[in-house]
Amino acid sequence: MSRYEFKSTRRIEFADTDLAGIVHFANFFRYLEATEHEFYRSLGLPLHFGGDSSHGWPRVSARCDYKAPLRFGDEIEVHLVVREKRRRAIRYGFVVRRLSSDGDAKAAIAAFGDMTAVSVAKDAETGRMAAVAIPDDFDAAIDQAPHGIWEAAGGASD
Amino acid sequence: MSRYEFKSTRRIEFADTDLAGIVHFANFFRYLEATEHEFYRSLGLPLHFGGDSSHGWPRVSARCDYKAPLRFGDEIEVHLVVREKRRRAIRYGFVVRRLSSDGDAKAAIAAFGDMTAVSVAKDAETGRMAAVAIPDDFDAAIDQAPHGIWEAAGGASD
Amino acid sequence: MSRYEFKSTRRIEFADTDLAGIVHFANFFRYLEATEHEFYRSLGLPLHFGGDSSHGWPRVSARCDYKAPLRFGDEIEVHLVVREKRRRAIRYGFVVRRLSSDGDAKAAIAAFGDMTAVSVAKDAETGRMAAVAIPDDFDAAIDQAPHGIWEAAGGASD
Amino acid sequence: MSRYEFKSTRRIEFADTDLAGIVHFANFFRYLEATEHEFYRSLGLPLHFGGDSSHGWPRVSARCDYKAPLRFGDEIEVHLVVREKRRRAIRYGFVVRRLSSDGDAKAAIAAFGDMTAVSVAKDAETGRMAAVAIPDDFDAAIDQAPHGIWEAAGGASD
Repeated sequence: MSRYEFKSTRRIEFADTDLAGIVHFANFFRYLEATEHEFYRSLGLPLHFGGDSSHGWPRVSARCDYKAPLRFGDEIEVHLVVREKRRRAIRYGFVVRRLSSDGDAKAAIAAFGDMTAVSVAKDAETGRMAAVAIPDDFDAAIDQAPHGIWEAAGGASD
Repeated sequence: MSRYEFKSTRRIEFADTDLAGIVHFANFFRYLEATEHEFYRSLGLPLHFGGDSSHGWPRVSARCDYKAPLRFGDEIEVHLVVREKRRRAIRYGFVVRRLSSDGDAKAAIAAFGDMTAVSVAKDAETGRMAAVAIPDDFDAAIDQAPHGIWEAAGGASD
Repeated sequence: MSRYEFKSTRRIEFADTDLAGIVHFANFFRYLEATEHEFYRSLGLPLHFGGDSSHGWPRVSARCDYKAPLRFGDEIEVHLVVREKRRRAIRYGFVVRRLSSDGDAKAAIAAFGDMTAVSVAKDAETGRMAAVAIPDDFDAAIDQAPHGIWEAAGGASD
Repeated sequence: MSRYEFKSTRRIEFADTDLAGIVHFANFFRYLEATEHEFYRSLGLPLHFGGDSSHGWPRVSARCDYKAPLRFGDEIEVHLVVREKRRRAIRYGFVVRRLSSDGDAKAAIAAFGDMTAVSVAKDAETGRMAAVAIPDDFDAAIDQAPHGIWEAAGGASD
C-alpha cells in the first residue's frame, strides 16, 4: 500500500453522460474526488468531513485537461499521485485512463487532473473555518511522491 | 401570492441531459425540489435545512410520471399544488410543462410529479431526527389546495 | 445468473450527499438505473441506448419510498426484481439496503424503488420515438419474477 | 450586448450542496458552462451541440480556483470574459461572485474559473470529431476582450 500513489477503477454510468454522448466534463471532478477518498480509506484514515466534524479538506483549486472522451460503459482507472505535501495542503495529480476491454492499463489517457485540498478546522473563537496544519494521522500516513513517480504514472510534466 | 399553488420557470441546461439527448429522468426531481423551495421563499418561510438546523423536510416519497422528453434549451414551467397538508407532512403535486417559444402555458405536459416531505426535528434526548408537527410558520403560511385546483392545474386525477 | 433478479453494491460518494448530511433523494434514482444497466450487462444484453442507436428504454415512471437515510461512505446493496414484463415495457422493483460493516445483507432498508421503462424505437417514417415490442434479445433474456420473489427480497407489498 | 463579456445570475439550489454544507466544487463547472451557453444565446448563436449536430465545443481544459464557499440560497453572478480567441478554440475566464442581499456586485469573490472550448466537427470520411476553425457565425459574433477587461472584471492576473 503506497503512501503517495493509488489507483481506483470505476465504470461510467448513463447519468454521467450528456447529449454529446460523452461524459460531461464536470463529472471528471467527481471521479478525482472519489479516488482521493478511496486513497484515504486504503490508508485507514478517517472520512468524517463536514457536518459535525470540526475538520475538513475543501478544495482550493481543481483542474482537468481533457485528452479523449469517455463513454457510457467505459471502465476507467484513476491513478492518483501525491505531487506535493505542504504544511496545510496536499496537491494531487491524476491520470484518468480508459481501460481497454482486456483491462490493459496502457490504454488511452482520457484526462489529467490536478487538485489541491487544504486542511481546515473550525476556529473555536470565531466559529469560522481556517487553514490549519495537516492532522497528525494524515501527516503520518501520506507522503509526497518521490521524484519521477508522476512521470512514471504517465503524468504530463508541467 | 397563493398559499397552496406556485409556478416557477427555468431553462434546461446542457449538464441536465444524457446521451439519449434528453433530460435525465433523475434531474426532474431536482426541478420539483427547487420549485418547492421557491414556494417557501415566496411565502417568506425560512430555508435553513440541515447543517446546524434542528428542523428539516426529508422526503418520504417521490414520484414522476414522464409524458414527453425535455431537451437542452427548453424553457419549462413547474406548477406546484399543495395536494395534502397533514399534521406532520405535506404532499405536493407538480405539473411540468415545456413552454413553447412564445411562452404559451398551454404547451405540452412533460411530467407529473408527486412528493411528500415530512417535518422532522432533532430529538434533544436521542439526538436522532424524528417526525414532529409542521412548524407554526409553515402551518400558518401553507394551505391545502381547495378541491379542483390540482385538476385545474392540469394534474391527472389519481 | 437469474433472469428476473439481480443485486449490485456500491459505496456512497461525497458528491452524492447534500447539506442535510445525507444522500440527496434524487440520487437514489441514479442508483436504481445503474443497477438496471448492470443487470443487462450480466445477461450479455447490449447497452447501446441513445445517440446513433435506434432503440432505447426511456422511463415512463419512477418512484422511491425513503425509509432511512444513506450517508457518505455507506456501502449499499440495490436488489432488483423484474416485477412485470409486458409486451412493450418492463417494471422493476428495487430494495435499497445499507450494508452493515460486516456485510450483513439483513441490514436496514433505506428505500424501495419502482421504475417502468418502455421499449422505444425511432419510427422510420416520422423520425420520432414510438413504443415497440421488447427486442428479441431482451425478451429472451429477461423473465418476470415468479410470485413471491419480490416479497422474499424484502419488497413491500403494494 | 458585448461581444467579449457577459454576466448571468442564478440562485444556489439545495441539490448543489454537499454534506460540508457548501456547494460541491464540481458544480461550479456547471455554472461556468451555463453562463457560456447564455452568452451564446444572448448573441443569437445556435446551441445545437451533440446529438445529430456535426459541430460541437468540447472542453480541452477547465479550472477553478476557490476563494470562498457558496451556500444554499445564495444568489451568485458569473462574469464571463473572452480571454483568448484562437483559430479553433476560445478560452473563457470567469469571476464568480456571491451577491449580497442588496444585490451589490462588489460582493465577495467565490471563485475564478478558466475554460477552453475547442471547435470540432465530424470528419465526413473518418466519422470522428476533429478540431476545425471556429464557425463563421461564432467568429463574427465573439471577440477577444481588449486588454484590461479581465482585470476590470476582478479577474486575477495569471
